Amino acid sequence: MSSTLSDVPAPSAPPAAGSFTADLRAEYDDLFEAFWNHPFLRGLYDGTLPRECVQHYVEQDHQYLSSFVRCYGLGVSMSPDRDWMRWFNEQIAFVLNDEQHPHRVLCEAVGLDHAAVVHADLAPSAQAYVDHMALCARDSLGVLLSALLPCVWTYMEAATRALAAAEPPAVDNPFRGWWEFYATDECQAILADFRFRVDLLADQAGPAERSRMAEAFRLGLHHEVRFWQMAWTREDWTPPRG
Amino acid sequence: MSSTLSDVPAPSAPPAAGSFTADLRAEYDDLFEAFWNHPFLRGLYDGTLPRECVQHYVEQDHQYLSSFVRCYGLGVSMSPDRDWMRWFNEQIAFVLNDEQHPHRVLCEAVGLDHAAVVHADLAPSAQAYVDHMALCARDSLGVLLSALLPCVWTYMEAATRALAAAEPPAVDNPFRGWWEFYATDECQAILADFRFRVDLLADQAGPAERSRMAEAFRLGLHHEVRFWQMAWTREDWTPPRG
Amino acid sequence: MSSTLSDVPAPSAPPAAGSFTADLRAEYDDLFEAFWNHPFLRGLYDGTLPRECVQHYVEQDHQYLSSFVRCYGLGVSMSPDRDWMRWFNEQIAFVLNDEQHPHRVLCEAVGLDHAAVVHADLAPSAQAYVDHMALCARDSLGVLLSALLPCVWTYMEAATRALAAAEPPAVDNPFRGWWEFYATDECQAILADFRFRVDLLADQAGPAERSRMAEAFRLGLHHEVRFWQMAWTREDWTPPRG
Amino acid sequence: MSSTLSDVPAPSAPPAAGSFTADLRAEYDDLFEAFWNHPFLRGLYDGTLPRECVQHYVEQDHQYLSSFVRCYGLGVSMSPDRDWMRWFNEQIAFVLNDEQHPHRVLCEAVGLDHAAVVHADLAPSAQAYVDHMALCARDSLGVLLSALLPCVWTYMEAATRALAAAEPPAVDNPFRGWWEFYATDECQAILADFRFRVDLLADQAGPAERSRMAEAFRLGLHHEVRFWQMAWTREDWTPPRG
Repeated sequence: MSSTLSDVPAPSAPPAAGSFTADLRAEYDDLFEAFWNHPFLRGLYDGTLPRECVQHYVEQDHQYLSSFVRCYGLGVSMSPDRDWMRWFNEQIAFVLNDEQHPHRVLCEAVGLDHAAVVHADLAPSAQAYVDHMALCARDSLGVLLSALLPCVWTYMEAATRALAAAEPPAVDNPFRGWWEFYATDECQAILADFRFRVDLLADQAGPAERSRMAEAFRLGLHHEVRFWQMAWTREDWTPPRG
Repeated sequence: MSSTLSDVPAPSAPPAAGSFTADLRAEYDDLFEAFWNHPFLRGLYDGTLPRECVQHYVEQDHQYLSSFVRCYGLGVSMSPDRDWMRWFNEQIAFVLNDEQHPHRVLCEAVGLDHAAVVHADLAPSAQAYVDHMALCARDSLGVLLSALLPCVWTYMEAATRALAAAEPPAVDNPFRGWWEFYATDECQAILADFRFRVDLLADQAGPAERSRMAEAFRLGLHHEVRFWQMAWTREDWTPPRG
Repeated sequence: MSSTLSDVPAPSAPPAAGSFTADLRAEYDDLFEAFWNHPFLRGLYDGTLPRECVQHYVEQDHQYLSSFVRCYGLGVSMSPDRDWMRWFNEQIAFVLNDEQHPHRVLCEAVGLDHAAVVHADLAPSAQAYVDHMALCARDSLGVLLSALLPCVWTYMEAATRALAAAEPPAVDNPFRGWWEFYATDECQAILADFRFRVDLLADQAGPAERSRMAEAFRLGLHHEVRFWQMAWTREDWTPPRG
Repeated sequence: MSSTLSDVPAPSAPPAAGSFTADLRAEYDDLFEAFWNHPFLRGLYDGTLPRECVQHYVEQDHQYLSSFVRCYGLGVSMSPDRDWMRWFNEQIAFVLNDEQHPHRVLCEAVGLDHAAVVHADLAPSAQAYVDHMALCARDSLGVLLSALLPCVWTYMEAATRALAAAEPPAVDNPFRGWWEFYATDECQAILADFRFRVDLLADQAGPAERSRMAEAFRLGLHHEVRFWQMAWTREDWTPPRG
């Protein structure tokens, strides 16, 4: 379907306050804080995260990232022009190649074989999250990117926040490389780019679509916190009994 | 996906000039005229349409209407509330039940067995039209209805225009029942309802979606004229040779 | 897209043992038992279910059924012929009209205004379930129906099982009408029809699709049990803290 | 949605006769011949193709290839594992980068500015073709690849056939580079890979899906011949008049 969306220039500055994404960031500050304060992330911060929680996380996150790539594929399919296609294709390559690194860091930190942890079935919270993303990715380009943004934003903000803290993750913290990865310029540029694109699409969206974009973002943030909880509790599908 | 779209009241008046659909009607008047003046419709008007053109038309239109129902199904899937679901549910029943009538009129007029003409394969122009609709129906609710509107509008306008003419289709014209069907109050109400809903969705859409809605409508009008041409020339898939 | 699927005759007998659905029923008997034994259903059985659990359930189930209708809409869009379209259209009408009844029974039983409980936001487990269904409904017709079958099967089996028990739900149990609704011949016929159609589609599917059908069914069963748990615990989106 | 599809090894040999694609090739030999004998391709062969036909073709094919990339994006979204994702990722890059080359060859041959011919609107036959592909790409992975295969196969077979002919396109034929591009080992490997994957997916598909795959291929072949005709006649949307 043709589109009048014009080419997207590289973001030369952080999005202005008052943008769509800036408003979302402000409105859902409590969820960013719940993410930041969750004991799973605390365990990565101080190096005490138990091995079995790390394992559960990497198993689930590997599948999650495969779903992320599938959503990028739907982004390609909705791309209004070749610049958008190129961008999505680069993001796909990034996840398939570069983003293996933080998983390898975690595996090495606790002595896990990375090859052995990439075949897990999805746990309930991970399944709910990837279903959320996959469904939003079948709505519009704006809703798709809004559903993916929480993952990018929470990780990259947490990484810079941690490394800029008075007491950052210690140099001998076995998970230190995980924090460093998401704080790299490359990762931070991805966040800026995401926000730029979401703001652009929000400007072009009508109220109904913009409302679905905000909802996709809000639920994504919830899913991020619940993903920590899943790994922290090593959630499985045992049927609840009241 | 939730939506803030409020319930749709019954249209109490024709849409105001200057509405989205009124603008489209004005902009594409030449395509409405090409539809009106096509020799296939002229043949229905004066009763001279050859039997084999009627047969080709009914064979293709039966499949086309099945595709129309499938698009309504996608409308159900995107319905923001139960009133919308109910409306689509009624439209589906209308096509499956009532809209058999004009086909039976045409078959009787030229001595065809209706049961024998409902298993045809799609000809190129019909295939192109149903693919267009099916694809638009996977975009947004607004784009879906905009792609379906040309079929409703061209037929129902042509029917009232013909029957209000100084020399309407003659009472003994074997195709007279076809004209009368699309001029019934029930059919005219469907057109009013369609326009009301498309205008409502256009109001809520952003510029990018509104532009896709207009494009879906424009191409649908072209496909309507080309559908006449297909039946008039009894088009098939014989490979062209230059 | 055309299909060679032939018309579906009315099921004249229960599906044979050894059918696709019979195998699924046997394989996941533990999940049917977890559904049957969950304290929420026990509370409907003995009439002790707390008012606030009833309210949470009806609020969520109303939204859930709207999503069910949306999935039926996608069924219309994938229908290989008009008999399938007609069947889906009847199912849509059934949910929109008849299936309001059990909700009204529950509301009356605990003194709730039905009109006041139909605007709730989805809780996490309900959101996860409807996202699961909506996504499966975008796969194939077989995967779609396999994802919807657990809801139909668990309710209708529980109803007949309860009413056939030595000590069925008491005549003065305020929820008695809920049990009776799902045990009606009409509801039981829907279950038989569903199984017939899923078995038919499984026969026509290749191993990859059949495996996705089984997975859609398995996860749907889990979601059914988790839906009870949601209403029993009046689940909300409060961020978990470890 | 999970899948049991195993990793795809590199094809070490041409697909055996009797494979799904070999059968399709045999069944639709007449369409391959209609493609091969069309005056547009003849004009590329003997160097006489008029400039305005070349221009029409490149304008339309540029948009067509963008749609091809969008279909690959849907392939990413349906990829059962990361090897499939990687393959689609590479194919996307190939179209966006390498496949500009044959267009530049054609533009240079007739003195067109490539940058000026990449903003055309789709003509009817090109629109019908991309709608066909886009819709098949929303079915299954097998149907998607089957709809894309005709483009790959017709071009690459024509190129090797022409260059192996007793009188191949002359060395000073201005379009010679076009033929050479599609005859490169890289292009021929893409065809072998495509056939390998389609055969693999056909083996795993049930009869209903396999029938949709064959139909997607058949219609794609027709669209290929009609695409030549479109460029040869410089087709536009002028409404037909009987």
